[in-house]
Amino acid sequence: MVATDNFQKTADSARFNLATYLKERQQLCDTALDQAIPVVYPDKIYEAMRYSLLAGGKRVRPILCLATCEMMGGTIDMAMPTACAVEMIHTMSLIHDDLPAMDNDDYRRGKLTNHKVYGEDIAILAGDGLLALAFEFVARQTPETVARENVLQVIVRLGKALGAAGLVGGQVVDLESEGKSDISLETLNFIHNHKTAALLEACVVCGGILAGASGEDIQRLTRYSQNIGLAFQIIDDILDITATQEQLGKTAGKDLKANKITYPSLWGIEESRAKADQLVAQACAELASFGDKAIPLQAIAHFITSRNH
Amino acid sequence: MVATDNFQKTADSARFNLATYLKERQQLCDTALDQAIPVVYPDKIYEAMRYSLLAGGKRVRPILCLATCEMMGGTIDMAMPTACAVEMIHTMSLIHDDLPAMDNDDYRRGKLTNHKVYGEDIAILAGDGLLALAFEFVARQTPETVARENVLQVIVRLGKALGAAGLVGGQVVDLESEGKSDISLETLNFIHNHKTAALLEACVVCGGILAGASGEDIQRLTRYSQNIGLAFQIIDDILDITATQEQLGKTAGKDLKANKITYPSLWGIEESRAKADQLVAQACAELASFGDKAIPLQAIAHFITSRNH
Repeated sequence: MVATDNFQKTADSARFNLATYLKERQQLCDTALDQAIPVVYPDKIYEAMRYSLLAGGKRVRPILCLATCEMMGGTIDMAMPTACAVEMIHTMSLIHDDLPAMDNDDYRRGKLTNHKVYGEDIAILAGDGLLALAFEFVARQTPETVARENVLQVIVRLGKALGAAGLVGGQVVDLESEGKSDISLETLNFIHNHKTAALLEACVVCGGILAGASGEDIQRLTRYSQNIGLAFQIIDDILDITATQEQLGKTAGKDLKANKITYPSLWGIEESRAKADQLVAQACAELASFGDKAIPLQAIAHFITSRNH
Repeated sequence: MVATDNFQKTADSARFNLATYLKERQQLCDTALDQAIPVVYPDKIYEAMRYSLLAGGKRVRPILCLATCEMMGGTIDMAMPTACAVEMIHTMSLIHDDLPAMDNDDYRRGKLTNHKVYGEDIAILAGDGLLALAFEFVARQTPETVARENVLQVIVRLGKALGAAGLVGGQVVDLESEGKSDISLETLNFIHNHKTAALLEACVVCGGILAGASGEDIQRLTRYSQNIGLAFQIIDDILDITATQEQLGKTAGKDLKANKITYPSLWGIEESRAKADQLVAQACAELASFGDKAIPLQAIAHFITSRNH
């Protein structure tokens, strides 16, 4: 049996094609997101919400949610409403962060930012609309196969990841730190734990909750997601220095220009990359007990450090 | 029995003191809202959220939620998390509506608006933080005595009342209508049904859902709330013309100055007031079958048309 299992494991690993996997899941997410927001009167607000939501992101967050739910024995159907919700929340945070009163960005995902197309007023409202829909969608669309208590737990996690204890709090400290050159590593970690890692953690952990994962497994998933969350941010910082605007689809070199403290500015690019690789290895090790079922999440972790945009 | 019931009814009506009732409930809500948002790092965002949330509103929305839950046989404890959530959602919509990119208001509830005190960036984030907390709070704090499925239904209703099919959609049409003098009654109704009535309806209906009200009773509650929602807006329009800034706590005469179509501008003040009275009478009649238990909600309906600020 052991020999067969090992053979099967090697075969599964060999068979697993991350590019195909990501593409398939991305298409599933794109279809679900497209159907989540039909255009009705007043058209403009639905169009503004769709403009940013369907702007062709990589769908890393929803895919993490789906993959975790499947690894823990759940189905794609169980997790899809939450997967859509995390992408709505992520998109909403980008729309509001890009506003002139915040980071004042003109480009995002290679397209004009929401307020450059629809105006600041509509952009603020499109963010609010996406946020409201995210919670409504989870509560309304999650199938009966998921225990109602677990759906409520997902809503608690999403609210926390988004609010003052998550994305919002991270953005506040980020804004306060702007232009200062004496930011501590502690503050930098706070910003990224809240602006980036909190939502990634929610994606993974909510996928587990939806599948009915045990408290112990939720702990494992939490450590996996915290590691890839930090690795993700380190790579983002490196790409801001090394990648071109065309590759990023958003303004490049912004951190340097804004005199922002980043991981590469503290550690150098080489050491930052080594740290990211180490975090990914730790993340993958957390999932060892799930065997072959963990292959997609482990491959996604490696993908995060190897991406160039 | 009938004679005793009638005697009891008259006695209850006579005993009911709306001013005392509202004051007691307002204090309960203020305490719960105060406890809902402790100040932790980063302090500024929690302070900004608290600044607007605890600015001393009348708490009409949360009180409607509590009163409905009690009328339908539920308790204050069952409804308090949702009552807090509707006030968070209402406050968030005021913060965002007051922004320079929207209605550009300097005063609200007699105090400087959020962005005048904390800046536009923090005001946008304070709104987002309140919104996230509203959903998290309902999911996390609603006691086990409420069926989990009913809590999810409440979240669906709140999301809908807030999003593009509610507040957000109403604000979009309101912004589009600004400065136009040829707005139809249909458009005006759309704006108010979405900007004002949708959230009032959610307050009332969610109070019923939390108490486990039947579908038929939810229908009655819906009609009650739609009638008081429209009456509320008509009175708001009248007060914008007749009340002073001191009474309103916000800039008075804004609608006239902005050349906005309002109910008084279409019907005149006299007819508008008569229409509001008629709507309140219809609202009260909807609750006739609940007997004396409906006294608070009926008194609140009358309060709406008699208020002078």
